[in-house]
Amino acid sequence: MNQEKELIENGVVVISGDAIEAVGGPELLERYQANEVIDGQGGILMPGMVNTHTHAAMVVFRSLGDDLPDRLKRYILPLEKKLVDQNLVALGSKYAIAEMLASGVTTFADMYYFEDEVAKAAKEMGIRAVLGETVVDFPSPDSKEAYGGLAYAEQFIEKWHEDDLITPAIAPHAPYTNDSMHLKKAAALSEKYDVPMIMHVAEMDDEVQKYKTEYNMTPVQYLDSLGVLNDRFIAAHLIYVSMEDLDILEKRQIGIAHNIGANAKAGKGVPPLKEMVKRKMKVGLGSDGPMSGNTLDIITQMSLVAKIHKLFNRDRTLFPAMDILEMATIGGARALNLDKLIGSIEPSKKADLVILETSSVNMQPIYDYYATIVYAANASNVDTVIVNGKVLLRNKCFTKFDFSKTREELMVLSKEIKTMIS
Amino acid sequence: MNQEKELIENGVVVISGDAIEAVGGPELLERYQANEVIDGQGGILMPGMVNTHTHAAMVVFRSLGDDLPDRLKRYILPLEKKLVDQNLVALGSKYAIAEMLASGVTTFADMYYFEDEVAKAAKEMGIRAVLGETVVDFPSPDSKEAYGGLAYAEQFIEKWHEDDLITPAIAPHAPYTNDSMHLKKAAALSEKYDVPMIMHVAEMDDEVQKYKTEYNMTPVQYLDSLGVLNDRFIAAHLIYVSMEDLDILEKRQIGIAHNIGANAKAGKGVPPLKEMVKRKMKVGLGSDGPMSGNTLDIITQMSLVAKIHKLFNRDRTLFPAMDILEMATIGGARALNLDKLIGSIEPSKKADLVILETSSVNMQPIYDYYATIVYAANASNVDTVIVNGKVLLRNKCFTKFDFSKTREELMVLSKEIKTMIS
Repeated sequence: MNQEKELIENGVVVISGDAIEAVGGPELLERYQANEVIDGQGGILMPGMVNTHTHAAMVVFRSLGDDLPDRLKRYILPLEKKLVDQNLVALGSKYAIAEMLASGVTTFADMYYFEDEVAKAAKEMGIRAVLGETVVDFPSPDSKEAYGGLAYAEQFIEKWHEDDLITPAIAPHAPYTNDSMHLKKAAALSEKYDVPMIMHVAEMDDEVQKYKTEYNMTPVQYLDSLGVLNDRFIAAHLIYVSMEDLDILEKRQIGIAHNIGANAKAGKGVPPLKEMVKRKMKVGLGSDGPMSGNTLDIITQMSLVAKIHKLFNRDRTLFPAMDILEMATIGGARALNLDKLIGSIEPSKKADLVILETSSVNMQPIYDYYATIVYAANASNVDTVIVNGKVLLRNKCFTKFDFSKTREELMVLSKEIKTMIS
Repeated sequence: MNQEKELIENGVVVISGDAIEAVGGPELLERYQANEVIDGQGGILMPGMVNTHTHAAMVVFRSLGDDLPDRLKRYILPLEKKLVDQNLVALGSKYAIAEMLASGVTTFADMYYFEDEVAKAAKEMGIRAVLGETVVDFPSPDSKEAYGGLAYAEQFIEKWHEDDLITPAIAPHAPYTNDSMHLKKAAALSEKYDVPMIMHVAEMDDEVQKYKTEYNMTPVQYLDSLGVLNDRFIAAHLIYVSMEDLDILEKRQIGIAHNIGANAKAGKGVPPLKEMVKRKMKVGLGSDGPMSGNTLDIITQMSLVAKIHKLFNRDRTLFPAMDILEMATIGGARALNLDKLIGSIEPSKKADLVILETSSVNMQPIYDYYATIVYAANASNVDTVIVNGKVLLRNKCFTKFDFSKTREELMVLSKEIKTMIS
């Protein structure tokens, strides 16, 4: 995923500390003296994947309320009000991070409540993360008052601001759950600390209707009129956007989290990805929360992105596998403004790496590595995961993290929830 | 997947010989004396899945030529002419059957060349199969003359006609690769032996154009005018069909193999699945060949069917997870006219069963078994597979089949192919 899209057979990557020192062929094995040599054993070494949009802790509710109509307002928000607390977020985040790491996601962007809990889990488990504290115009699980997320966010940003793995952020939930004054305040906070501002934008059809009726604007035009769009802004979804909206978004250099799996399952619509990529906008892939996209891996999303956009454009040549893998790695890094740090295997970049094994039945034969990854691989083919130079997964097992303990805790919690809601 | 869609917690299934003897709760453990007890260990026992359409042996070419335009005529057919022989089909089928079994497919429908090789592999490995010998109007890998498949098919049907696992069939490739006389001959053979006739129908836009120009008919109207449509007929794809076509197909009680993953990846179009299901037509799911759909499992297809049709219909409530699982199991059995034998877990049905483990990270928590299977599971969660009463997979390993040997052979062959085509 470097500029030349180089592909090295029998390649060797040298890691020093948290960074990549050298990339090349077997000659590097002689040139460098290594403390540890990891043999890829015929596997595919690739950049760690970037999940540009999720609500990790919601994994606690996975498989709950799928296929229901009008789910956000009638189901999810009341559920969260009743059940979400600090402990749930701490446990859910741990579990979700385990799922992401095990599936080769080495960086994720999150927006939820109690983001300090998410940050602590991410830091402890060693994954890279961009974490946006949610701001909404109603009392939320971590704030008795509307817009309490703003104060939480400032404290949170202060605390994690200088961390090497965690990028704190501010995340107004959506245009329609924040008034213009508070959106500007959030943007000011983002500017003050030079941190991302994450938001759901143009995701809902009634959102589009609201800004049409109230301002005769699109959601994008409305946000731009407030002056909150800039290169720190990360927009999730962008389903209902016009070419004029894209002109604005392109000019403001915003990052885009494309969540086709969740958008499709919700029957919402298809963002104009072809046009976004043609404009070389900063597009990465996201799973969305596990109540929407169900799984948190990006391999599943790659296949969906390829298939759904080929289908909608009636063009089997659109987005060949290499382009899809680009979105899943360096594209996601660009969307999060982390592309100087991660997203490709190049000297001086952070060592965020994944090895896919190729011994499972679905992984052979291999005539084209990109096609194999995008069309045949699944999350379980991830064998080894390295983040920031640390080996976190080896032979499909966590090197330090006690997954079975966290799974037990999650199963206990989900049983309690089942009782409470039935 | 019985009529009442019963769901049993802590269920017990008693198998006697090749069939299910009893289904119930833990009391069955006392009522029956078993030679062997398989503990599901918190897993989900479900009917084996049915892959209603594939070209199994083409797994040899997987990841070759993806994303290319006009692929069938410019790429696949010449490739097959050059490379496909008896040995390739024998090896490819074995490998593909391994992939299907390991992912919980217990019955598959195939159409290709040298189907006798496929039958031998299926029989040896213990999978249930409906195998249609291809008929085309040009010389093919297993016949020097056009339409040689007809003679091959008759011999093949004679040989396997009475087998308990193999249902032989005749498979004219498509309307546009067979003339009317030979289509009628194929239909006569299907009638004579009471075996299925399998065909790609209404898959290509130029196919639609051809029958429009030549007969002012749709492909379906054309086939019906020949008198070849009946309840033994299994149509793959049916992308370009009108409501009038569906009237015909419903009346003729044909079986439908719905291959949304392959159709999407090819940028072709979306079959009117909602309407097919509303009419209670016999609809099952298919992966299509591994050059089209890449993987042969049906779990991947379930998620795609749900997502793509919800998206196209802009309706998140369409095809809830239970309906999707129905298509993947009893629906597929109906499409292949095997629903009296398989497709559900009921006494006197054949014991074709799958256990999904629920200990992997993507499988928890579980509030809804159907949603977990359709939206969260992947092929690697299949732990145990039983076909016709025989345990073929246990703890994700084949009980008898030497997979690594077959994989080695496939890797050797694919290296040779790589050299030949480069």
